[in-house]
Amino acid sequence: MALYVKKFGGSSVADVKKIKNVAERIVETADRGHQVLAVVSALGDTTDELIELADQVSTIQPKREMDLLLSTGEVISSALLAMAVEEAGKRATALTAHQLGIQTDLTHTRARILGIDGERIKAELAAGKIVIAAGFQGVTENLDVTTLGRGGSDTTAVALAAALDADQCEIYTDVDGVFTANPAVVPEAKKIERIGYEEMLELASLGTEVLQVRAVEVAWKFQVEVHVRSSFNKQLGTIITGSDQVMEDVQVRAVTVDEDQTRFTVHAVPDKPGMAGKIFGALAAREINVDMIVQSSPVSSDSLNDISFTVSRTDSAEALETLDELVELGCGTKLTVDDEVAKVSVVGSGMRNHPGVARDLFTALGEAGINIETISTSEIKISVLVRAARADQSVKILHSLFDL
Amino acid sequence: MALYVKKFGGSSVADVKKIKNVAERIVETADRGHQVLAVVSALGDTTDELIELADQVSTIQPKREMDLLLSTGEVISSALLAMAVEEAGKRATALTAHQLGIQTDLTHTRARILGIDGERIKAELAAGKIVIAAGFQGVTENLDVTTLGRGGSDTTAVALAAALDADQCEIYTDVDGVFTANPAVVPEAKKIERIGYEEMLELASLGTEVLQVRAVEVAWKFQVEVHVRSSFNKQLGTIITGSDQVMEDVQVRAVTVDEDQTRFTVHAVPDKPGMAGKIFGALAAREINVDMIVQSSPVSSDSLNDISFTVSRTDSAEALETLDELVELGCGTKLTVDDEVAKVSVVGSGMRNHPGVARDLFTALGEAGINIETISTSEIKISVLVRAARADQSVKILHSLFDL
Repeated sequence: MALYVKKFGGSSVADVKKIKNVAERIVETADRGHQVLAVVSALGDTTDELIELADQVSTIQPKREMDLLLSTGEVISSALLAMAVEEAGKRATALTAHQLGIQTDLTHTRARILGIDGERIKAELAAGKIVIAAGFQGVTENLDVTTLGRGGSDTTAVALAAALDADQCEIYTDVDGVFTANPAVVPEAKKIERIGYEEMLELASLGTEVLQVRAVEVAWKFQVEVHVRSSFNKQLGTIITGSDQVMEDVQVRAVTVDEDQTRFTVHAVPDKPGMAGKIFGALAAREINVDMIVQSSPVSSDSLNDISFTVSRTDSAEALETLDELVELGCGTKLTVDDEVAKVSVVGSGMRNHPGVARDLFTALGEAGINIETISTSEIKISVLVRAARADQSVKILHSLFDL
Repeated sequence: MALYVKKFGGSSVADVKKIKNVAERIVETADRGHQVLAVVSALGDTTDELIELADQVSTIQPKREMDLLLSTGEVISSALLAMAVEEAGKRATALTAHQLGIQTDLTHTRARILGIDGERIKAELAAGKIVIAAGFQGVTENLDVTTLGRGGSDTTAVALAAALDADQCEIYTDVDGVFTANPAVVPEAKKIERIGYEEMLELASLGTEVLQVRAVEVAWKFQVEVHVRSSFNKQLGTIITGSDQVMEDVQVRAVTVDEDQTRFTVHAVPDKPGMAGKIFGALAAREINVDMIVQSSPVSSDSLNDISFTVSRTDSAEALETLDELVELGCGTKLTVDDEVAKVSVVGSGMRNHPGVARDLFTALGEAGINIETISTSEIKISVLVRAARADQSVKILHSLFDL
C-alpha cells in the first residue's frame, strides 16, 4: 500500500463533470489498494470572481481579509470533491488548512509554510478515508488564514507529500507536462520526460506556469519526486527529480518567455553609498521581488546613476507607489515605467560546461534584428529582455537554434 | 462607550450597494463612540447556490462536508463587509467561527453552541477595531466546522451578545419588526413594539421567520434584550425582552401560519407498549423534530392504532426514509404523506387567564367552513392544522376575531 498525493488545479475541477472525472481518478488509485491524499484548487474561475467581488466592494483590501476571502474557493472545491468521491463509492473527508495542520508565517497573500502537523491526515487515512485537502492556504500561529500565492496549491501538495513521506506526488494539470517551449508559440516543442530540480526551478521562475516556484523549491529541499501530468488523459507527463536521475545533461533544456514583467527606471539617482540599498530595501520590505537590475555608470560630473529593473506585473502597482515615495524623498529625479517588455530565457544544466551558449544566443537574436535591452544570467540560464512584440519570434529562433 | 452587536441577514447584504449601506450603518454607530461587533449572513442567495452546486455534484452529501461547504458563504460576506468598513473609514477585522471561539456540539447542519471564548474578539475591539463575525457557524472540539441551522446567524449574534455582555443586540432584517400577522396576508397587521421571550419563542417556532427559535431561547436564557429592525430604514422595530418589560398582557399577540409542514400517518400500528417510542425514537435519533402528534384510539379487536404527526418540510425526505424502514420492520402496515397542510396558530401570554380563546377560535373557523384536522396547544398558544389552501383565509379570520 502506497500513499499517493494528487493535486488537481482549477482547470481540472472547472465544472461538475470534471469534478466527477477527478473523483473517479482518485477512486481508481484507491481501488488498487493505495491511500490517497488529494489537494484541490478552487473551481475554474472562482478566485477571479472573488477578486472581482472585492474590487466592487472596496478599494481598500487588507491582505488578511483578501486571504480569508480567497481561501473559501478551495474550501468549496474540497467539500464538493469529497462528496463526489463518496458518490463514486469511497469514504472521503475534506480538510482545511487548520485541520491539515499547515502552519505558515504572517506574510498574507504569499505566506511560507513553516511546518505541517500531519496527525489529523494520518488518522483519517488510517481510518480508511480518502483525504481531500483544500490547497493554497495555511494558518498563522494566531489562527488567521493565509494563502500561499498564485499556484500555491502546488506547494501545498509537495509540502504534504514531504511531511507525510508520500510514495508519489502527482500534479494534475491541463497540459501534458513540461515542454521545451510553450507549444502555443512553438508547435514543434517537445514534452520533457525527466528534468532536474535546478532546471525546473529556473523554468518555473522564468514564466513556465506548470508548477509554482516554491513547489519546486520544497520538492528539491525534501527530495520529493514530482510527476506533472494531464488530468484529461492517462499519458505519463514530466518527472521532476534529482539531477542524478536525469540521464542527459543538455546544454539547453527549454526556452521560456515571461511577459508578466514591468520595467521601472529611476533616473538620476545620486551616486553615493546606500542609495541602491534604500531603493531595493524599500521594495523588499513590501515583499516585492526584483529582477534584471541594471545600473548605468555615472557619466556626468554630478555623479548620477540611472537604475533600472523589472518586477512581476502583479507587484507593479505596489512598486510604483513605493518608488514614487522614494523619488519624492530625493532618491532620483524621475521614474519611468515600461510595460511593453518580455523576458526570454534559455535554461539548461549543461550550460555550466558549454560557454558558447550566450554567444550563440546573442548572435541569433542580433541577426534577426531583435534588440536585447538587458541581460541576466545564472550558472544554468540566460535571460534577455526584449520588446514584448518580438518575444514569440525570439522564442522560435532560440528553440530552433538549440535543436530542441 | 457601549458595545453594540448588530446582525445583518442575507437580504441586508444581497448586493454590493447593500453591503456598503450596512458598512455605513456600522460606521455611524462607531462614530458615536461605540464598539461594534457585526454578525453577517451569506450574501443573498449564496447558500442556495452552494446547495445547488452540491446537488449537481453528488447525491451523497455528508453533513460534515455540507457544513464546510455552506460555511464559506458567511466567510465571504464577513471578509467583504470588513473591506467595506475599511473603505468607509474605520479599521475592521473579519473573524470566522474558530477565531470567534464559538464551540459547538457535533450535530452537523444544526449544531448547538456549547460555549464561546471571546478573547480574540475582546482583543480586536480593545485595539479599536470593528469586528465582523461570520454568522451561522461554529467549530467542534475536533476543529470541524459546523453550522447552526437555517437562520443560525441570529443565534450567533445573540450568543455573542450574551458572552460579551453587550449593551445592545440588534437584528437587522428586511422587515420592520415582528407583526401581529404576516402583512403580505393581512394588510392591516400591526408592528408589535415589545414582546416577551416566551411569546416570541412560540411565534418563532410557529413559522414567524423574523428570528431563529434558538436565538430566542438563548436570548431568554441569558436575558439579552433583542431589537429586531429593518436594515433599510431607521425606524424602531420590535424589542424582545423579559415579560416584566412588556406592558400589556394580551390574550392574543399574533397569528402565524406555517406552510412548511408535512403530515405523516403510520397506519395500523400494533397497540402494544413501546411502539410509539420506537417510531419517535427513530426520528429523534436523526434529529427530526415532530409536532402535532395524534394517535387514534384502537377501535377494532386487533388493537391497531393510526399515528399521525407533522415534521418540517426540510426534514420530510429523511423522515420518509426512516418511517419506510420502520413500516418494513412491522411498525404499521402503510405510510401516507400529506404536503397540503398548514399550521395556523394564535399566540398570547394572556391566554393563561382567558380560557375562551380556544372556543372562539374553533367557532370562527367552523362558521367559515374551515375544517380543523389536528389541534395542539400550549399554555400560551393554540395551533390548528388546516388545508394549506385555506391557511391565509384562516389567518385573516383570526386576526380580525382577536382585534389585532
